[in-house]
Amino acid sequence: MNSVVILLTGLSGSGKSTLAKALHTELRERSVSAYQLDGDVLREHLCSDLNFSEIDRTENLRRAGAVAKILADSGQTVIASFIAPFEQARQNIRATVGADRFIEVHVDCPLEVCEARDIKGLYKRSRNGEIENFTGITSPYEKPQNPDIIVNTSEQSEEECLEIILGYILPRIL
Amino acid sequence: MNSVVILLTGLSGSGKSTLAKALHTELRERSVSAYQLDGDVLREHLCSDLNFSEIDRTENLRRAGAVAKILADSGQTVIASFIAPFEQARQNIRATVGADRFIEVHVDCPLEVCEARDIKGLYKRSRNGEIENFTGITSPYEKPQNPDIIVNTSEQSEEECLEIILGYILPRIL
Repeated sequence: MNSVVILLTGLSGSGKSTLAKALHTELRERSVSAYQLDGDVLREHLCSDLNFSEIDRTENLRRAGAVAKILADSGQTVIASFIAPFEQARQNIRATVGADRFIEVHVDCPLEVCEARDIKGLYKRSRNGEIENFTGITSPYEKPQNPDIIVNTSEQSEEECLEIILGYILPRIL
Repeated sequence: MNSVVILLTGLSGSGKSTLAKALHTELRERSVSAYQLDGDVLREHLCSDLNFSEIDRTENLRRAGAVAKILADSGQTVIASFIAPFEQARQNIRATVGADRFIEVHVDCPLEVCEARDIKGLYKRSRNGEIENFTGITSPYEKPQNPDIIVNTSEQSEEECLEIILGYILPRIL
């Protein structure tokens, strides 16, 4: 069994966490050792010294890549969900982890749809000026140039997205 | 099976890496998922931004604790070997990882013995003034106040040390 690092990148509210969780369940059902890595996990300890400025978000992602590599080296398949808005930062993760075991999934969804969902109320807070550097509103999201997989959560169901991702990654893992 | 974090702390040349490697082999033979974490692994990517000043060494250990927690959460038993000279930093790792799954092993060995071994030539370089803040020479090593295990590599053989450590950790893991 090969361990890979799956990066789910997309806007806040695009459905990354939902897909990550479902993916985790599917992988475990196939006895794949998998670990969900996200901003909440990192900011609890490892990145507790970082804020949300562009420079600190870049550092946060750099550390995410480093930890993903360590986890993959230890035999875990890593399901990493991060907004990861900058192409260069994503390319850096690919380089750190190793291109042969890195899978970039663009969880695509129009900004209007994400903002209408606004599950965490962050878009509203951003529009009210309460959040600085909020991706999609006051900070750009650079569309992935060459993702391994694209799913569109405004057009495809969770099951369809999951099937597309699993169809790609399972042959790489098993 | 429970995953624990084993911290091997001691002077440079005390035998931490040798014990870590042997421990790794013993655990794998018992089908325990184990991962060796050390300064080399961390400084390759995660801590490549840090130098060897006291403040950066403290930050290096803080990140080591955070990564050890993530690895343990993912199901790995972590064999962490770090000089980790400061009691407070070790206590911080214990708190991050969780006291119930943290095992502190003091790999004790008199400075004269470590310096006579000088496997990496670092003591000589430190005595020549080529290395700043070298533990034991120009920077203190605070003896662990309350380690779970003490082994003394100048008086006990590798096999004896290993037996002591395994005798303590295996009932915790299996």
